[in-house]
Amino acid sequence: MIERTIFIENAEQLITLKGLSGKPATFEKMSSLSVIESGAILIENGIIVDVGTTEDLRHKYSSKIEEAECIDASGKIVLPGFVDPHTHIVYKGSRENEFNMRLNGATYMEIMNAGGGIHSTTSKTREATEEELFTESMNRLNKFLLHGVTTIEAKSGYGMDWDTEYKQLKVAKRLNEEHPIDVVSTFMGAHAVPKEYKEKPDVYVELVINEMLPKVAAEKLAEFNDVFCERGVFTPEQTRLILEAGKKYGLIAKIHADEIEPYEGAELAAEVGAISADHLLKASENGIKAMAEKGVVGVLLPGTAFFLMTEAANGRKMIDLGLPVAISTDCNPGSSPTVSTHLIMNLACLHMGLTPAEVITAATINAAHAINRANEVGSLEVGKKADILIANVPNYMQLQYHFGMNHTDTVIKAGEIVVQGGVRC
Amino acid sequence: MIERTIFIENAEQLITLKGLSGKPATFEKMSSLSVIESGAILIENGIIVDVGTTEDLRHKYSSKIEEAECIDASGKIVLPGFVDPHTHIVYKGSRENEFNMRLNGATYMEIMNAGGGIHSTTSKTREATEEELFTESMNRLNKFLLHGVTTIEAKSGYGMDWDTEYKQLKVAKRLNEEHPIDVVSTFMGAHAVPKEYKEKPDVYVELVINEMLPKVAAEKLAEFNDVFCERGVFTPEQTRLILEAGKKYGLIAKIHADEIEPYEGAELAAEVGAISADHLLKASENGIKAMAEKGVVGVLLPGTAFFLMTEAANGRKMIDLGLPVAISTDCNPGSSPTVSTHLIMNLACLHMGLTPAEVITAATINAAHAINRANEVGSLEVGKKADILIANVPNYMQLQYHFGMNHTDTVIKAGEIVVQGGVRC
Ligand SMILES: [Zn+2]
Ligand SMILES: [Zn+2]
Repeated sequence: MIERTIFIENAEQLITLKGLSGKPATFEKMSSLSVIESGAILIENGIIVDVGTTEDLRHKYSSKIEEAECIDASGKIVLPGFVDPHTHIVYKGSRENEFNMRLNGATYMEIMNAGGGIHSTTSKTREATEEELFTESMNRLNKFLLHGVTTIEAKSGYGMDWDTEYKQLKVAKRLNEEHPIDVVSTFMGAHAVPKEYKEKPDVYVELVINEMLPKVAAEKLAEFNDVFCERGVFTPEQTRLILEAGKKYGLIAKIHADEIEPYEGAELAAEVGAISADHLLKASENGIKAMAEKGVVGVLLPGTAFFLMTEAANGRKMIDLGLPVAISTDCNPGSSPTVSTHLIMNLACLHMGLTPAEVITAATINAAHAINRANEVGSLEVGKKADILIANVPNYMQLQYHFGMNHTDTVIKAGEIVVQGGVRC
Repeated sequence: MIERTIFIENAEQLITLKGLSGKPATFEKMSSLSVIESGAILIENGIIVDVGTTEDLRHKYSSKIEEAECIDASGKIVLPGFVDPHTHIVYKGSRENEFNMRLNGATYMEIMNAGGGIHSTTSKTREATEEELFTESMNRLNKFLLHGVTTIEAKSGYGMDWDTEYKQLKVAKRLNEEHPIDVVSTFMGAHAVPKEYKEKPDVYVELVINEMLPKVAAEKLAEFNDVFCERGVFTPEQTRLILEAGKKYGLIAKIHADEIEPYEGAELAAEVGAISADHLLKASENGIKAMAEKGVVGVLLPGTAFFLMTEAANGRKMIDLGLPVAISTDCNPGSSPTVSTHLIMNLACLHMGLTPAEVITAATINAAHAINRANEVGSLEVGKKADILIANVPNYMQLQYHFGMNHTDTVIKAGEIVVQGGVRC
């Protein structure tokens, strides 16, 4: 904890997202950014102490402000640091060759035969030392930070054997300890059926349930338990078994649901009480309604559809059906090799029909809800962690309007200035 | 001219685009990047003196290199600074409100009635002082530079009266003189029919031909003459009259062609000997073939389609038909408010089917051809201007693979380091 007082003032817009920490925002609440013009925020010891207009706070805290580190946000907006609720950042190796083959007209099978696909990342991640994995993932976190992300979820799942899953989860834990970004861990042993179990997937499911989950729980290596529920990967029945087993150990359920074809993943998420279901490109209307009723957050991943050149999920319709929507990079080497929440927001507007206000909610407080952190981060309210992004635009609409650009000016994490832009008072 | 020697070495890939300066690259030549591994480049007085492997150049120029400013490009690639051949950067005001209305479901007419559209930019640009216009445009150029752009085309056309067109062209000229980026000017009095001439567009065409063009030529304010040829704007016949008139003054023709519906703009470009035809979303196959035959560059603007949520031009098919293709931001406040050539390249891959190699050609040497600068810039060859981008990726495929990110590390303009990243030797 930093023993320091920071005062940010003169923000053209201070976007607080007030009053949305209790439950995920839906319908018109997704647009209620609670903007303060000429806004200011006072931070002490890493925590938000007060939020208001510059005039009010200058008046109320004049002596404290004299001693404080003071940042002039004139011409800029201040908003919560972005929360990324769905990533696979702990991996080794990159796969630009596959991408290049694809754009040069190679078929899926040609790419697989050339050693592409998830199993190539699995091999490299299995072979990597913990230190190599840590270093490569740390580099990715540094880039996330430069884009204004202050909390991130990280899944295992490129091992699909205990040693590697364990290695990934240990790396995520170390990243959380050693990097400014908060890293929240998800166990995802059921990311794919490993080659060794291709003919006996049920045996792998038993391995996950009887051997991996108990170890994850015993060492408190993760808070969430995620399964790739998709035809040819894990069935809804296998998914249910794994998620229910995790719940017995206190692991909260998440699902990769209905990405490639309708498979009742959304329905299952509602039924097992998952905190989120992610992807949802092919989710049924009934599934979305069931999720909405149970308050399951829909985590949409527009970068993945963009990179795979498929049609994005219909986020507009989901919000109109009452689903609380979050967005994420899905950062991973196969289907979304990006760290830019800025472009993800642009894509959520232009490919999913979300409004500029809704995408901010989706990238902050609703994203925090999707990883059970809404009590700590995702909005600028008294008592919350001082995770703050100062963006170099005069209003929040321009974040989306000036597309394709990283508008990050300054990033403050738990009261410490970790990306240094801006102007001192 | 800078009296300085710079030596860049150890580039994982030095992308030279050698041998493409004579005429625009087509077919498989669009993929011939002429990559040198462990590449090096020697610069003296703003000009490229030699290009080769680090080993060869270190051997050949050992004493010169001892005196030189030396940049270690290990882990990075070196390529020509980007050339942006189609922008409208000299304007006043931003239009995020329109964008927000659009995403909140407003119709075109509702947006127009709320004061939106090109005429809102025209009003603000007419009202702006030359100094205001200069300052705002300078800010945009600074952002372009941070994205690795070293040459840019800038069109007038937000005046549609002589005073404002003149003001825009003077600002572009001052930008060229005062900013590191080279700014190449295009007169585009025929950007739209101004409100005052709504009922008598032919009178406006005469004004452009008989009053504006002679003044542009007399003061050498532009090299190119561009017309928005589209149903409801200027007809092919009006376009031809304006372009032929410009040619008499030595102004090279360009056309905004076939953006919204097929209108034989591509055919007209071939017929009048335009240097480029731009947009081309609805261009006919015959039009593309006619352009290809005449060597007219097709300038594609994927950001515009992305922002307007329409389908992009079929760049893949155009290249396969033999068209030399360039890409551009189309930077403007209405339909493409971005400065990121990086995202434009990503979009050209993912929405137009270009390959990672082709987009680099499209953003450098072919873009230079589109504005008659291929003899000076757009490739890294002996005698050319030292306009260089060092990008923080280990191979050119990753420029596209890691999408949505600005990979600029260092920018060198005419031998001067204008964006400082990187590592000194
Ligand atoms: Zn995922
Ligand atoms: Zn244009």
